[in-house]
Amino acid sequence: MDAGVISIIPVRGIKLIAPGDSLGLEIVKAVKSSGVGLREGDIVVVSHVVVSKAEGRLYRLSELAPTPQAIEIAAITGKDSAHVEAVLRESKRVVRIRGEVIITETRHGLICANSGVDLSNVGEGVAAALPDNPDASAERIRLEIEKAAGVRVAVIICDSHGRPFRRGAVNIAIGCSGLEPIWDRRGEPDLYGRVLRSKQICVADELAAAAELAMGQAAEGIPVAIIRGYKYIPGVVGASQIIRPREESLF
Amino acid sequence: MDAGVISIIPVRGIKLIAPGDSLGLEIVKAVKSSGVGLREGDIVVVSHVVVSKAEGRLYRLSELAPTPQAIEIAAITGKDSAHVEAVLRESKRVVRIRGEVIITETRHGLICANSGVDLSNVGEGVAAALPDNPDASAERIRLEIEKAAGVRVAVIICDSHGRPFRRGAVNIAIGCSGLEPIWDRRGEPDLYGRVLRSKQICVADELAAAAELAMGQAAEGIPVAIIRGYKYIPGVVGASQIIRPREESLF
Repeated sequence: MDAGVISIIPVRGIKLIAPGDSLGLEIVKAVKSSGVGLREGDIVVVSHVVVSKAEGRLYRLSELAPTPQAIEIAAITGKDSAHVEAVLRESKRVVRIRGEVIITETRHGLICANSGVDLSNVGEGVAAALPDNPDASAERIRLEIEKAAGVRVAVIICDSHGRPFRRGAVNIAIGCSGLEPIWDRRGEPDLYGRVLRSKQICVADELAAAAELAMGQAAEGIPVAIIRGYKYIPGVVGASQIIRPREESLF
Repeated sequence: MDAGVISIIPVRGIKLIAPGDSLGLEIVKAVKSSGVGLREGDIVVVSHVVVSKAEGRLYRLSELAPTPQAIEIAAITGKDSAHVEAVLRESKRVVRIRGEVIITETRHGLICANSGVDLSNVGEGVAAALPDNPDASAERIRLEIEKAAGVRVAVIICDSHGRPFRRGAVNIAIGCSGLEPIWDRRGEPDLYGRVLRSKQICVADELAAAAELAMGQAAEGIPVAIIRGYKYIPGVVGASQIIRPREESLF
């Protein structure tokens, strides 16, 4: 009965990550001591917060001097003006403001709330920004893991994002390394031999979403999950390729 | 090491579904004969195509008389005019047309390509529409499964949808029964005791996305997957609650 079964395995016991830590090495330590191990072809999904911590992508809110624009948006949204300042520094443009929500386009091109600047799980008075280059972070973590564990893996860095037409956030892939993020099935035959014309699946986002089911089990979150048994297509293209260019958007 | 591991199990050997079939019964037969079985708390994720087939939600394209609007859109998009006719019949409004893509709002309120009317895996000259009431379909399938298998399960009906800002489609929940589709974590403490202010997770969509990883393993698709080991919150609210009302949209 095990044919084709995919496992989502939470990785517990990772130490509190601090700037300068080798996250790949800490992940390998935790999978070894927990008995989960790592196998060839595993997909290691990592929450962006620990990546940001390891890379020191943190703002101390007391050290930020808010601009007049940040102060104005803080007044409209009821947010802390230093938090808004961090949000603006991480953004290319403000897409929309409503209630207490600021939707921005991040420097990476992601459209999301608060430029992904997160006040959760980073400690009082600190905000975590997204990694500068999540694909490069994923690549580095993958190489660290492969060196320490001796097996080939893929790495996805994930974050939880809201959607325009649907309530609730879902985990998506903001960075990846070692796998093709989009599976292009166009040209394959269907059940009746009809050729699929428009089937491109964002497997990186589906893997990130799956990982969250295991990561969300503890109230404080589990920062890493391993997906085992999914046959991905090896690739060198990063998750930045998932971002739809503005001129291509249909909405 | 099994603590918290979640399994995604493809269900193979389901017969070709025809109008009038009891899909719940066919699923129970297949899980029994394949040895997968069903356990208390399993989540059964079902592709909408087999639900539509069982419910006879099929258009024979040769029997559709396209309206002038359908003929005009067919000319613009290069699509078959009978297919466009089916798309329009299933829609409340056309949101956007570009290239060969028609984005509509379905009668359920879903914003998606072609009103979800699918030409794949249904046979030549036939198009499958989405179930009339996917939450009611999920409820019926759940009751059929529970009666035949003697265990309590949750059921999600899924479809693959594109996204405004991201390339590639992902599986989402268009119907569900037995579980709370959105997990509201607001008020819980984070790693440092800070209260989460804006954490609502659409677990139904994450479960649908996870299921697709197993369903997509065969070229022709596997219409059902079981997710085992995920502790969902039992609920009576359907997936229609995930649809963000237009006036609430920030985009």
